[in-house]
Amino acid sequence: MMMDEDIEKASLLSYSDRPRTFPDMRSKSYTPLIFRILRSLNVRVLSILLLFCLGAIFYMGASTSPIIVFVFTVCIISFLLSIYLTKWVLAKDEGPPEMVQISDAIRDGAEGFFRTQYGTISKMAFLLAFVILCIYLFRNTTPQQESSGLGSFCSRAMSAYITVAAFLLGALCSGIAGYVGMWVSVRANVRVSSAARRSAREALQIAVRAGGFSALVVVGMAVIGIAILYSTFYVWLGVDSPGSMKVTDLPLLLVGYGFGASFVALFAQLGGGIFTKAADVGADLVGKVEQGIPEDDPRNPAVIADLVGDNVGDCAARGADLFESIAAEIISAMILGGTMAQKCKIEDASGFILFPLVVHSFDLVISSVGILSIKGTRDASIKAPIEDPMVVLQKGYSLTIILAVLTFGVSTRWLLYTEQAPSAWLNFALCGLVGIVTAYVFVWISKYYTDYKHEPVRTLALASSTGHGTNIIAGVSLGLESTALPVLVISVAIISAFWLGNTSGLVDETGNPTGGLFGTAVATMGMLSTAAYVLTMDMFGPIADNAGGIVEMSQQPESVREITDILDAVGNTTKATTKGFAIGSAALASFLLFSAYMDEVSAFAHESFKEVDIAIPEVFIGGLLGSMLIFLFSAWACSAVGRTAQEVVNEVRRQFIERPGIMDYKEKPDYGRCVGIVASAALREMIKPGALAIGSPIVVGLMFRILGYYTGHPLLGAKVVAAMLMFATVSGILMALFLNTAGGAWDNAKKYIETGALGGKGSDSHKAAVTGDTVGDPFKDTAGPSLHVLIKMLATITLVMAPVFL
Amino acid sequence: MMMDEDIEKASLLSYSDRPRTFPDMRSKSYTPLIFRILRSLNVRVLSILLLFCLGAIFYMGASTSPIIVFVFTVCIISFLLSIYLTKWVLAKDEGPPEMVQISDAIRDGAEGFFRTQYGTISKMAFLLAFVILCIYLFRNTTPQQESSGLGSFCSRAMSAYITVAAFLLGALCSGIAGYVGMWVSVRANVRVSSAARRSAREALQIAVRAGGFSALVVVGMAVIGIAILYSTFYVWLGVDSPGSMKVTDLPLLLVGYGFGASFVALFAQLGGGIFTKAADVGADLVGKVEQGIPEDDPRNPAVIADLVGDNVGDCAARGADLFESIAAEIISAMILGGTMAQKCKIEDASGFILFPLVVHSFDLVISSVGILSIKGTRDASIKAPIEDPMVVLQKGYSLTIILAVLTFGVSTRWLLYTEQAPSAWLNFALCGLVGIVTAYVFVWISKYYTDYKHEPVRTLALASSTGHGTNIIAGVSLGLESTALPVLVISVAIISAFWLGNTSGLVDETGNPTGGLFGTAVATMGMLSTAAYVLTMDMFGPIADNAGGIVEMSQQPESVREITDILDAVGNTTKATTKGFAIGSAALASFLLFSAYMDEVSAFAHESFKEVDIAIPEVFIGGLLGSMLIFLFSAWACSAVGRTAQEVVNEVRRQFIERPGIMDYKEKPDYGRCVGIVASAALREMIKPGALAIGSPIVVGLMFRILGYYTGHPLLGAKVVAAMLMFATVSGILMALFLNTAGGAWDNAKKYIETGALGGKGSDSHKAAVTGDTVGDPFKDTAGPSLHVLIKMLATITLVMAPVFL
Repeated sequence: MMMDEDIEKASLLSYSDRPRTFPDMRSKSYTPLIFRILRSLNVRVLSILLLFCLGAIFYMGASTSPIIVFVFTVCIISFLLSIYLTKWVLAKDEGPPEMVQISDAIRDGAEGFFRTQYGTISKMAFLLAFVILCIYLFRNTTPQQESSGLGSFCSRAMSAYITVAAFLLGALCSGIAGYVGMWVSVRANVRVSSAARRSAREALQIAVRAGGFSALVVVGMAVIGIAILYSTFYVWLGVDSPGSMKVTDLPLLLVGYGFGASFVALFAQLGGGIFTKAADVGADLVGKVEQGIPEDDPRNPAVIADLVGDNVGDCAARGADLFESIAAEIISAMILGGTMAQKCKIEDASGFILFPLVVHSFDLVISSVGILSIKGTRDASIKAPIEDPMVVLQKGYSLTIILAVLTFGVSTRWLLYTEQAPSAWLNFALCGLVGIVTAYVFVWISKYYTDYKHEPVRTLALASSTGHGTNIIAGVSLGLESTALPVLVISVAIISAFWLGNTSGLVDETGNPTGGLFGTAVATMGMLSTAAYVLTMDMFGPIADNAGGIVEMSQQPESVREITDILDAVGNTTKATTKGFAIGSAALASFLLFSAYMDEVSAFAHESFKEVDIAIPEVFIGGLLGSMLIFLFSAWACSAVGRTAQEVVNEVRRQFIERPGIMDYKEKPDYGRCVGIVASAALREMIKPGALAIGSPIVVGLMFRILGYYTGHPLLGAKVVAAMLMFATVSGILMALFLNTAGGAWDNAKKYIETGALGGKGSDSHKAAVTGDTVGDPFKDTAGPSLHVLIKMLATITLVMAPVFL
Repeated sequence: MMMDEDIEKASLLSYSDRPRTFPDMRSKSYTPLIFRILRSLNVRVLSILLLFCLGAIFYMGASTSPIIVFVFTVCIISFLLSIYLTKWVLAKDEGPPEMVQISDAIRDGAEGFFRTQYGTISKMAFLLAFVILCIYLFRNTTPQQESSGLGSFCSRAMSAYITVAAFLLGALCSGIAGYVGMWVSVRANVRVSSAARRSAREALQIAVRAGGFSALVVVGMAVIGIAILYSTFYVWLGVDSPGSMKVTDLPLLLVGYGFGASFVALFAQLGGGIFTKAADVGADLVGKVEQGIPEDDPRNPAVIADLVGDNVGDCAARGADLFESIAAEIISAMILGGTMAQKCKIEDASGFILFPLVVHSFDLVISSVGILSIKGTRDASIKAPIEDPMVVLQKGYSLTIILAVLTFGVSTRWLLYTEQAPSAWLNFALCGLVGIVTAYVFVWISKYYTDYKHEPVRTLALASSTGHGTNIIAGVSLGLESTALPVLVISVAIISAFWLGNTSGLVDETGNPTGGLFGTAVATMGMLSTAAYVLTMDMFGPIADNAGGIVEMSQQPESVREITDILDAVGNTTKATTKGFAIGSAALASFLLFSAYMDEVSAFAHESFKEVDIAIPEVFIGGLLGSMLIFLFSAWACSAVGRTAQEVVNEVRRQFIERPGIMDYKEKPDYGRCVGIVASAALREMIKPGALAIGSPIVVGLMFRILGYYTGHPLLGAKVVAAMLMFATVSGILMALFLNTAGGAWDNAKKYIETGALGGKGSDSHKAAVTGDTVGDPFKDTAGPSLHVLIKMLATITLVMAPVFL
């Protein structure tokens, strides 16, 4: 890395002498192109442009549906609120210069990696866009498209451009979501550290509001992006006018957006996850285990890399992940709503199609209320007894959930009331309730298995007292066991929502109940109806973690560290619980996307595609390959971290040997080299699992399509891919639950021992627990979260690539 | 335990003063009831009885088919050969008294545990038999049974008794198979140790012949048991006479036998696996890691428990496991052969039905040749350079495989030639070849991932040099990654065998090709066509391991230890590779049993049951629950080992603290307490996962049957169970591959470091590798092998319980 030499000259103990720790990076301070263009414009020109855009959007919205106008309004208000939140956070002081300098170093590392990483991702995205374009230009057309005049090559080209444009827009928005998450966290961390010197409550409030800012932007952008695409297509294609496309087919054009979002999210999560955990594991293995120095100790050469990792791995990647979750879920629910409305011959289908957008608009409103409900107390002082931040966050969550139940009822009555089935809206409201309850139970289960207040983690901690081996065995068993309850919950949720939907009174021409799948879709929306608040809690974690690191590195007094330690522990719990939430919603969303895929294939193939029969050997093989994909992907994600961590360990050991003064604070460690090692390794290592995830459904689909062609089985490729998708979803959910829970439990078992239990810090039990924590790192922060994204990306890629399999 | 007090009085260094280490157990020397009755009879009476039985068997065989006579003849010859082998082994000397005493202690511990364990298992088996009886007495009847006069309650009772009798016979045979495996291994171990003082080659030969004895008994008993049942039913029910059952339906009556076998095998594997690995992990964690004494050191109080575990876990359990594999595979192939013969209206169906029995008869012949081909060299002396035993075993395997190819061709031409499709036999011969090649490739892949001559284990060993954490991460990734190639191989095998079967020219009435599934069945038979030799190699491992333990404990010179160390290392590799083989055959056998299940349901339900559509939410949920079952089962199996190992660790630590003289050989450790702890824990802990495995398909099937009844979905229960079975099979294969390979690789990475690489014994790398080995123990020897059995047990339990789900 270029920055190495400059850092060589720097000195650890003379931070104040140097304005920047990484001056080389600093000079190239990174702002994405789009912001640079905006900044270079005159303010007046900008305002006029903005007003013009707004006007155009509202015009199109108004021509589409009043519901869209409502969605636009809410999104824009929430963007304004997020600007207020960021101004509020940025107005806070950054603390003494030593904090600022550490924070700057973190920011530089994070922004540098982000730039390189997204450079690579965008190249891959353009390549893939080109492939999609080719596929769509030469694909078969659907009867619907023929009837809407999209049958000819010329209109096929239009459909190709629509898909590619949606893909690129989805990818761009996902990238921005990631950037926003990181942007705020690298700025908020130092402000939280600084506030921790004054009051725990203020520090909490800053972290929550910073998290809230990115949550509102991420959710708002997902909603408004889809709304804009929808109304653009609506107006442009003259939907619902005679001879054109029907509104119920419109959502299928949006799948490119979901795929773009999940494509970027996958690589963001992989690259970020490898970066953060390789640095963390490497730092811990030498620092904590071999040298016995505390976490985030400035003597550890990998400490800055670790702190940078929190931002690129947890903030940027999680932003993209949740963005993609919401986008995929909205689109699949819109598709299912459209299909059902068509089958039931509902006159005004737009209510059913736009319902997800409205639910998430309300999500923005109620989550804002929840975020703002967390206030700084008036007589905030460091002497006041520290209130448990978990209780504060939980209060906000409860408030948000109560509001969600109310607004969900309002939305269903408003949009899902139809004269054909007057009580259907009530059934769907109950489906929503099922989803909300499921989310709550999921969060509770993850807490039960990962919080050291409960039995499982205590048993795990006890297993550490008999050695490294028993600790790992106990952690693996705990993780494997923790899959059972969530699976039971999700099973009950799917079946009851399906049943509620089926008994809603909505029937097709022949009198068969048709609302079942839409019922599950509504349950998914219910589950995600507090997404913005959950994302806030999730973002809170890495910000608190970073703040703790800055406090430790700038050697603040013990009392300040105590405050950030508490915030950090709470952040760990919220991170673990929101992962449970993410898996639950991924499971449901995949199930919906799977149905959408079958509809899409039926449409392309001009024949019914209603079942995936795993008694056919080829289809069974597809399933086997799907499950195998999950295992192989997890393997590669974990081994990437392991390999990179080994490089870090060797580098850190080398520095300790070559510069013996480091341990006595007499010599400075070379932070930059570690950052450089993990950054280049993360970029290199994210390609293999990513390519596997994208390539394998395409390759398998194509191969079995050819096999089917020669053995006289039409649709064989599509069926095999369907089975692959279903088995991959099931295995992916279980594997992700296993990895996330095991990782979280190991982490907290270590924290439990650090509270003084079973010998406390430095004991043999603690060493065994640190081993467990190290193993858990790639599980819970690289492979696990990548699997959520993988599951949804598989579902969207099969949807977009459907023409290839026929 | 009762034996504790006696052992308290014993002294480690005065072995020679005491005739027995565990005199208390010794006095109750255990012989199963059946042997005791036989022994108490006069020799002449016995001979007459035997001749009478033989005559009756041959009479029934002759009334059934000449093929059965052939099968009987081969089985009886191979039993005679096995008697020769055991006499040969027992004629070898037992070495000096110190060896004999250790061996006696091991034998006593093993037989004591075996008795208690099988007492518990047989109680459960009788309970289950009663449940099955009730279900069958009140079930619906099939049209076939009605036509064969089995429709009335009276004949339904007959069908109930048939199933229950088959179940109990299967359970009994499985138990005997386990006992035989253990019986010979506890006798051969000391003879191998003694021979190792003279010559490596002789030691190898004894171990191989002892393994060969139990392999021939296990395989022979599976074959002859089914043949006897088949001909008994044939003669008794007057099959194929007008108005009676058709011969093509006869194999369905045998499923009880397979279920009984897998039921016992599951508990044998669970109990034995928990016993052996809890003792091993406990012994290693304190002995190797904390105290730094070598493996099998007499100072370690858990060492006898560890050696006992090898016998009850590896020998007894693996015998039952392979017995069950072969039985399940034979029965499912017979069912499929019958179904196909019926569909194609083949006149003499018996060739297709009895084909599996003939294949395994040839298996007995060619494996005997392979076993006998391993000879002691004439000028065997300890000074001669030691030949690599792996090469010797491999030569025998290659010979067996070549013979298998030849005899398989003969069998197909003999039995599968039909005038309707004159070239069909050639296609099926090719299917067999596919199976044989698959087996070979599977063995090769497992060797690649677990042998330290290859890249993966070396990388794993390298990861140990950076700490415990990276070692575990690397091992987990290696295990997860190792699932990919076997899945690809099995996919290619299934598809090509299916295709070969379908193009065999066999068609049903409407001209559709029908040979596909039978093709996969033939491939499975090809895979298992060298089963007896593979089982020999598998049994070789624990015998060599035990011999090494006895040599170490009786403090023989270094040169003797070297020989047993080499044999032990080879045993580790053969154990790992035969596990790959077991999974491959389990995957194929489950796929066949699944088809048999669908046939069975169709027959019971009086309606077609041809597809399992996972697009139906309930069916998808069934799949989700099936995969979850695998995760939960693995969790419980691993945590059982972890928990018990913790008890052992605490006990061993206590002994080291309370008797400080142990380390200087001044005080004797209390071996008996450790044996007692693991024995009672293993019995307690095997119940939970076992009950889960048996209960969950029944509970799920019943629940969805009721749900289906109320929502108007006939067959819903059966469909959900089918999906559960398929998903469990897929997840089970992957999980078993992961667990077995990771465990084997960790073990060998440790062994690689012990050869002196990366710092060698005692270095930090070695400590990290030992942690990995400890974690791998429950993976590869408890959860992994239990999963093979679980997969097949699920398939047979659904088959037997099919009436419950309708």
